[in-house]
Amino acid sequence: MVYQGVIRRYKNYLPVTEKTPIITLLEGDTPLIEAENLRVSLGVDSKIYLKYEGLNPTGSFKDRGMTVAVSKAVEEGASAVICASTGNTSASAAAYAAKAKLKCVVLIPEGAVALGKLSQALIHGAEVLAIKGNFDDALHLAREISNKYPVVLVNSINPHRIEGQKTAAFEIVDSLGDAPDYHFMPVGNAGNITAYWKGYREYRKIFQEKRKLKLPRMMGFQAEGAAPIVRGHPIKKPRTIATAIRIGNPASWKKAEEARDESKGVIDIVSDKEIIEAYRMLSSVEGLFVEPASAASVAGLVKYVRQGYFSQSSTIVCILTGHGLKDPDRAIKVARKVRVVKADLKSVANQMRL
Amino acid sequence: MVYQGVIRRYKNYLPVTEKTPIITLLEGDTPLIEAENLRVSLGVDSKIYLKYEGLNPTGSFKDRGMTVAVSKAVEEGASAVICASTGNTSASAAAYAAKAKLKCVVLIPEGAVALGKLSQALIHGAEVLAIKGNFDDALHLAREISNKYPVVLVNSINPHRIEGQKTAAFEIVDSLGDAPDYHFMPVGNAGNITAYWKGYREYRKIFQEKRKLKLPRMMGFQAEGAAPIVRGHPIKKPRTIATAIRIGNPASWKKAEEARDESKGVIDIVSDKEIIEAYRMLSSVEGLFVEPASAASVAGLVKYVRQGYFSQSSTIVCILTGHGLKDPDRAIKVARKVRVVKADLKSVANQMRL
Repeated sequence: MVYQGVIRRYKNYLPVTEKTPIITLLEGDTPLIEAENLRVSLGVDSKIYLKYEGLNPTGSFKDRGMTVAVSKAVEEGASAVICASTGNTSASAAAYAAKAKLKCVVLIPEGAVALGKLSQALIHGAEVLAIKGNFDDALHLAREISNKYPVVLVNSINPHRIEGQKTAAFEIVDSLGDAPDYHFMPVGNAGNITAYWKGYREYRKIFQEKRKLKLPRMMGFQAEGAAPIVRGHPIKKPRTIATAIRIGNPASWKKAEEARDESKGVIDIVSDKEIIEAYRMLSSVEGLFVEPASAASVAGLVKYVRQGYFSQSSTIVCILTGHGLKDPDRAIKVARKVRVVKADLKSVANQMRL
Repeated sequence: MVYQGVIRRYKNYLPVTEKTPIITLLEGDTPLIEAENLRVSLGVDSKIYLKYEGLNPTGSFKDRGMTVAVSKAVEEGASAVICASTGNTSASAAAYAAKAKLKCVVLIPEGAVALGKLSQALIHGAEVLAIKGNFDDALHLAREISNKYPVVLVNSINPHRIEGQKTAAFEIVDSLGDAPDYHFMPVGNAGNITAYWKGYREYRKIFQEKRKLKLPRMMGFQAEGAAPIVRGHPIKKPRTIATAIRIGNPASWKKAEEARDESKGVIDIVSDKEIIEAYRMLSSVEGLFVEPASAASVAGLVKYVRQGYFSQSSTIVCILTGHGLKDPDRAIKVARKVRVVKADLKSVANQMRL
């Protein structure tokens, strides 16, 4: 059957009806790649799979939630969507709003956001307004606007976002025939770990008459300088090179703790150095280029392998949340350099060590 | 069934055997998106579909050919792959070589290539050598190396590249149940139009006992300043903002002319202005962000619609060859600008014209 996006594929398990207009860019259905090279590098006998969410239309997992949020906004008669966001959320909101013929407004703090991060929102025709204030002011204003006008807030507090994002858990189970034993992922605003845990639990219930599905341990990783859940308090000035998880006060804090506790998992820390190590490993060993934040999942896996956490053969899934092309400057900084050689066979062969 | 990449999906129609090791990043299976908004904008009653090849693992259609070229290189016992490339080919070669545990060498002319274009090749661990010479010197050296050492050339003269790329035509037929009436695409080095035409013809033959498939008219578009096939002679200094088709002397020139003539299609010109217009239209009307070169297909469609080319309802497919994140600077240049507003409800609402 021809693929038609996450809403049509999983409509029975999403808050849509026959009347909901479906706004889709054919998000989802992302590759689940067996990481045999990584397995050998780490010396484990578990199966490791990488869910490459960077191959969603706008380059991140946000599209799964946005297709539902924007479809519902259209159904509700909204004239616009609004978000306070500096990155992947604004890119996704702008793209889906374009497809839906809705206006999209993105509020950002003036002076705090590099233009490169906004290229997608801008080219998709969003109205990007830089307000004289900080990020909290931007989010507060977005909420106010959505309360007073027929404008739908599509930040992660919009519950339809979580609903759409849970479909990634469905896909993993559909691919593997069961849930994995361990599910590694980055944790920033914590909506995504909430969504995966919801997805695994719901799918287990849906299939309970037919077969008993596993529930994975949820292994979430925050960056060392932006780890409010691990520290137990909000972080005023979160710091990490992994911009997509640079969050000091996660919207889904409590839900993330529930996912951790109910699944007997962990929410732990990885350093920027460990994130960069995993980022390089993914690109040079598995051929997968990811956003730095995405590498937090694999950094967590590396950390737990080194601690001897896995005593027996298991099935492990790591979520790669966004494509590396979202942040090409980081690649240039981290990667090996171009070398200059003379234009003759011998010089080139020497450089190649042939 | 779980998707396993283009080689496993189409192995009966590709130059592989049971012995070929399959090096895949789960490329292919890209969305074919119905462009209803674009159809309405253009005022045609044909069905328009967009094949979004930017959702291949490295962000362009090159991955389809590279999975075959690199798999065959491993089968043949190569120790390295080499290419002369400044863009998408080098990104793809480096990623697949990483997965295959092969060395990858990329030759570029010194000083002629912006570092940003090389971020993928570098992060995937390719050895990028800037030679003191021009692009032709680089390609010549790459050929020489591949002749003298166990190193496989993966530039588009490698015939396995075309074989892999033809699978995109198979996917279109599989999705639509038939070939389209018109197939619009950008033409640069002309390998891709060669591959699609080969794919359509082969699939028609494969299915001939069961049902009679259509063959599309192949509608290829070169950029005005880089249109050697249209002009009838090589272009010494090709110029266009669409860097991925900035080619003055296409490797598959003759094959592209055959595709045009056999299919009763055209190879025609679109200006940079028309390319940018289509680029903006795709992102703001369909929510799809593409490389400028990709927009040449839709620019061609717009041109032919305006000329009254389509007299009756048809099925039209346009190929979008690469993701817009490959060239974010172009988006910033072309898109609307950020506006600064005061951080209060009224100011924001006014800007939003609520």
